[in-house]
Amino acid sequence: MTQSVLLEQIKSKKSFLCVGLDVDQDRMPLDLKDDPDSIFTFCKKIIEATAPYCVAYKPNIAFFEAFGSDGWKSLQKVMDFLNKNYPEIFTIADAKRADIGNTSVQYAKAYFKHFEFDSVTIAPYMGKDSVEPFLSYEKKHAILLALTSNDGASDFQLLKTEGKPLYEKVIEQSKKWKNADRLMYVVGATKAQALQKIRTLIPNSFLLIPGVGVQGGSLEEVAINGLNETCGLLVNSSRGIIYASNKSDFDQAAGEVSRGLQQRMAIHLRQKGII
Amino acid sequence: MTQSVLLEQIKSKKSFLCVGLDVDQDRMPLDLKDDPDSIFTFCKKIIEATAPYCVAYKPNIAFFEAFGSDGWKSLQKVMDFLNKNYPEIFTIADAKRADIGNTSVQYAKAYFKHFEFDSVTIAPYMGKDSVEPFLSYEKKHAILLALTSNDGASDFQLLKTEGKPLYEKVIEQSKKWKNADRLMYVVGATKAQALQKIRTLIPNSFLLIPGVGVQGGSLEEVAINGLNETCGLLVNSSRGIIYASNKSDFDQAAGEVSRGLQQRMAIHLRQKGII
Repeated sequence: MTQSVLLEQIKSKKSFLCVGLDVDQDRMPLDLKDDPDSIFTFCKKIIEATAPYCVAYKPNIAFFEAFGSDGWKSLQKVMDFLNKNYPEIFTIADAKRADIGNTSVQYAKAYFKHFEFDSVTIAPYMGKDSVEPFLSYEKKHAILLALTSNDGASDFQLLKTEGKPLYEKVIEQSKKWKNADRLMYVVGATKAQALQKIRTLIPNSFLLIPGVGVQGGSLEEVAINGLNETCGLLVNSSRGIIYASNKSDFDQAAGEVSRGLQQRMAIHLRQKGII
Repeated sequence: MTQSVLLEQIKSKKSFLCVGLDVDQDRMPLDLKDDPDSIFTFCKKIIEATAPYCVAYKPNIAFFEAFGSDGWKSLQKVMDFLNKNYPEIFTIADAKRADIGNTSVQYAKAYFKHFEFDSVTIAPYMGKDSVEPFLSYEKKHAILLALTSNDGASDFQLLKTEGKPLYEKVIEQSKKWKNADRLMYVVGATKAQALQKIRTLIPNSFLLIPGVGVQGGSLEEVAINGLNETCGLLVNSSRGIIYASNKSDFDQAAGEVSRGLQQRMAIHLRQKGII
């Protein structure tokens, strides 16, 4: 999917919401306990309830991987369901991959060719040749970790290097890579103050913002500091949406929370003149 | 597996060789082209031929992941085969994982509980809480990327931060984490000069050294600069071993290359007084 198609979706749904599919079997609604493929059933119901209010889905690969090949079968079913029924919705493999070049080629093949995701999250530590294989696919995107939402972000990402924090160096360097226009960036919602500075470095790039909700980030701060003229934001909520209820109304509850977030997002999109 | 059990293997086989299973279907021996599970068959034959000469196997997860759930089924078969027939051999999931805490918990579950690997390679960018979940398992190990073998290593890992390169900060910080004695580190063979300095920072830790062979690293330089009193090295070769021949003698050829490396390693182990 191109970024302009994504922007059309954002305008049409008045939303820049991404729903994170972190499907924890320990938190599965009681109704699904006996379902032979509860992971897929759960995702399907969450998707059907939230699709009117979001523009992206972000399966968290670890939660599928924990079940080995069975988990990957469920992931395949989720992606087939999404690509068949909601081809207009942007998909993000939250996988935090990257390795030496010939290995990143294989990871890119997994997410872009096999599962047909639109994008995948990427860890920057191994540098240019570990990321470029993900940038060689037209209409696909690598979403590079810049400044993450967790406590450990301060261990290395904030270290001063050549007078600026490491995450700024990551952003600056990455802009020089081949097909850099296919890059997006992860910036944690808990780091809203840094967004202003980040916007000066990458005014036009899309940012994936996790950490709203359970992790404590503020949607309003993120919108004020992060929105650009073409939106440029995908704000993710996972647990706050998919575990809004653990009873049989879990999908309805997820839909309601999503709708609430969408409505708050619409206000910001209007204020910014995007819709 | 504990590090002392690993050391016993090293002494008994007179080897610190790790065989990397980077199973590229495009480079599969012609004989296996029609095998319905050529990935597993290839790995099985390579393992049977090389097991006398190596102390560790390192499946490269990307090459399995590229085939979705079928690839993960093959990985399961490879791990079942290894754990059943060669329980004394150390296994490394070369996966370069790490994410926020609750997600790293799931990755640790995948590799340590589901597949029963002894260790997994980990990317450090997200810091302490992204790594510690991998350190909470007894007799299991997280192998943290320090200085990698690829060109892109210079993009961020060599950046000066507080007067020293980032990879040294990664090593220093990681030593403070909970159960840090379960950490090992990745140091590329192409960076042999840095090994001396790294040994002053972590004199007792095991280092996983990829990059000997196709990537151009020298086994001799690595041994001279990296061996400690209890060996402390696992030197990996992937393509140089598993693609030594692409004819029907591919397993025999892999065994011969492994034996050659083992014999050179034995000389270094003797010189160091370990055997």
